[in-house]
Amino acid sequence: MKILVCNVGSSSLKMKLLDMRTETVLANCIIERVGHENAVTRIFIGTRKVINKESSIKNYSSGIKTVLEYLLDSRFSIINNLNEISAVGFKTVQAGDKNGTVLVTDEIIQAMENFTGLAPAHNPPYLQAIDVFRNLLPQIPLVGVFEPGFHINAPTYAKVYGTPIDWLENHGVKKYGYHGASHQYIWDKTRELLNQPKKHKIISCHLGGSTSLCAIHDGIAIDTSMGFSPQSGIIQGTRIGDFDPYILPYIMKRKGLTLEEALANCSENAGLAGLSGTSGDMRDINAEIKNGSKRAKLAREKYIYDIKRYIGEYLVLMQGLDALTFTGGIGLKDSDLRQTITASLAFLGCKLDLSQNRNHDQKISASDSKISVFVLETNEELIVARETQKLLFGKSA
Amino acid sequence: MKILVCNVGSSSLKMKLLDMRTETVLANCIIERVGHENAVTRIFIGTRKVINKESSIKNYSSGIKTVLEYLLDSRFSIINNLNEISAVGFKTVQAGDKNGTVLVTDEIIQAMENFTGLAPAHNPPYLQAIDVFRNLLPQIPLVGVFEPGFHINAPTYAKVYGTPIDWLENHGVKKYGYHGASHQYIWDKTRELLNQPKKHKIISCHLGGSTSLCAIHDGIAIDTSMGFSPQSGIIQGTRIGDFDPYILPYIMKRKGLTLEEALANCSENAGLAGLSGTSGDMRDINAEIKNGSKRAKLAREKYIYDIKRYIGEYLVLMQGLDALTFTGGIGLKDSDLRQTITASLAFLGCKLDLSQNRNHDQKISASDSKISVFVLETNEELIVARETQKLLFGKSA
Repeated sequence: MKILVCNVGSSSLKMKLLDMRTETVLANCIIERVGHENAVTRIFIGTRKVINKESSIKNYSSGIKTVLEYLLDSRFSIINNLNEISAVGFKTVQAGDKNGTVLVTDEIIQAMENFTGLAPAHNPPYLQAIDVFRNLLPQIPLVGVFEPGFHINAPTYAKVYGTPIDWLENHGVKKYGYHGASHQYIWDKTRELLNQPKKHKIISCHLGGSTSLCAIHDGIAIDTSMGFSPQSGIIQGTRIGDFDPYILPYIMKRKGLTLEEALANCSENAGLAGLSGTSGDMRDINAEIKNGSKRAKLAREKYIYDIKRYIGEYLVLMQGLDALTFTGGIGLKDSDLRQTITASLAFLGCKLDLSQNRNHDQKISASDSKISVFVLETNEELIVARETQKLLFGKSA
Repeated sequence: MKILVCNVGSSSLKMKLLDMRTETVLANCIIERVGHENAVTRIFIGTRKVINKESSIKNYSSGIKTVLEYLLDSRFSIINNLNEISAVGFKTVQAGDKNGTVLVTDEIIQAMENFTGLAPAHNPPYLQAIDVFRNLLPQIPLVGVFEPGFHINAPTYAKVYGTPIDWLENHGVKKYGYHGASHQYIWDKTRELLNQPKKHKIISCHLGGSTSLCAIHDGIAIDTSMGFSPQSGIIQGTRIGDFDPYILPYIMKRKGLTLEEALANCSENAGLAGLSGTSGDMRDINAEIKNGSKRAKLAREKYIYDIKRYIGEYLVLMQGLDALTFTGGIGLKDSDLRQTITASLAFLGCKLDLSQNRNHDQKISASDSKISVFVLETNEELIVARETQKLLFGKSA
């Protein structure tokens, strides 16, 4: 069975075709700068790059058509017929209470439209992509695997804000959480490395341009750092993280901003980029710190402080910790950051093997550490494919 | 040396005259419903209530004059002459970077006016009270002991939000923290009970209608739950606590509210009152839970969850914990809540003596507990008096 996974960004389109018998990727297709004259299309078969082409890709519709043509291209022997694709799974972001893994119906599309305000960079391109597939391949089922789905079973008290009850009950104002597919994959893989204990206390740290942490206690994702919007929680590349809303009227008055302008600043010019005053990329921040930038140092310190805060929360909520797993661009590559964070858990008997940490090994905790620490590449597409298969055909891989 | 301490609420006036040689309270004067026909004035000498009178108190000016007349009343032998008062200390709230313990000058008054937006219920009545004393007792020094003062030495990374750097550097957008006098008193007293160790890791839990936690590591208040405004952190009586600001445009649109209306809801109709849908008083919440209210149960669970979250943060930031101290109306009286919270620290060897906990004893941890747990009445006025004395006369008590 072949499942096509579709990951739509604000200007990118990533599609992976998976053979679910072996969970192998048959083709990995990436288009960047969708909507531009100089869009770049890359197609990989395994690790082999078979296409690397700059051309005009006007919109998601032509992007998807381009990818489907390559999938059918006889030179690559990927598929002979689009009917070989059993389903398309979308790594969708936000549709309020239409959460989890769901067949994309008119009702789901309407809910995604209703929640566009919450995911302005993601819902509209997904809606476009869904529309293209509905027209091109009306016979193939489309499945939305919504990012907050993994967080659906968290206890209610961990999902509410202290709002008037009406905001919660009648308007869906609560913590949704995001990065669900990534945390689910990391949880699954970490459990495997721990030899599948039924009882487990795991923290998944997805640290990248977009950052969130998730605590998984005995199979339930009990809490996560992102809330109603993906801007909350830990500071991120350009996103502000946790923020006191009473700052808004103050700064609007001081700087003559509208609410929309102030909040746009908080998602586009804040976080690591905001504090450092330059880049939201941790590699740039690290280079600036070497050049003596105090602002870059503050941005990195605040990022680490936020991660520590959330690890502390989950430690008490789960009453202990078995394993801490790092993923995402920063999590995979920044060994100093991993060392600083785990050092603050030394009082619990957490110990790194410093050489394994420097090498970015899969297991970086010392053999006598009381907490296992792992570094794992995430695989969101695999989770989307598995969830799609499970919904449609009643079984996971 | 006698110091008068002035604690001004949105409709109350509390004044205590302290003899600083012995740190005893010579008189405790409370006026409630200032601005109303049926204001109530109560004067205590020791535990003896010498005045309990309902009368019209038009404003803070007439309230203060009333109190001063009673202090001079020969029937009570408190003082013979206002010149016996060496200074007046105010438990002031917010003046931005004019923080800590300061002589009240024109510049401080201007800063308090500038920051009224951040402390709308507190700065205006304090400004009125200061004005009255300046006119009535121009020869007596007035001192502001600002609530965020105790948090001034927290590391910078713990005080910033992930804002654009300009908001921090040019507009003072950062975590200020509040309840400084209370946390300072609790820290001081907890250290005393621990036998004055230089190295210590203490969490002060001020749990009442207004709630905050503070972590004190080796004498430095390294973090606290309230941020820019006192609305943030843990949910409180009517205050929302930590909240994703991207909810604001969403709920404004859904409910047709202005930003001001939405934020007024978040400070006046939120927190325990918001989630329970009825009262912000934990005693009422507990009664409603007994009557089967699910909303009241959720409100209490969320309050406890928030406290656990912050304790977890401080645990990792300090890398351990020596003592946890409860104060405030809820902290002093809700033994079930103390038991639930400390139970989540059992994995660290924290153990309560359940009978001492039920009795609200000063020390409630078991003799073999690895973390000491105390229940202490706070004394903010004493801290204000001590800070005032230290600023003016170069010594603390």
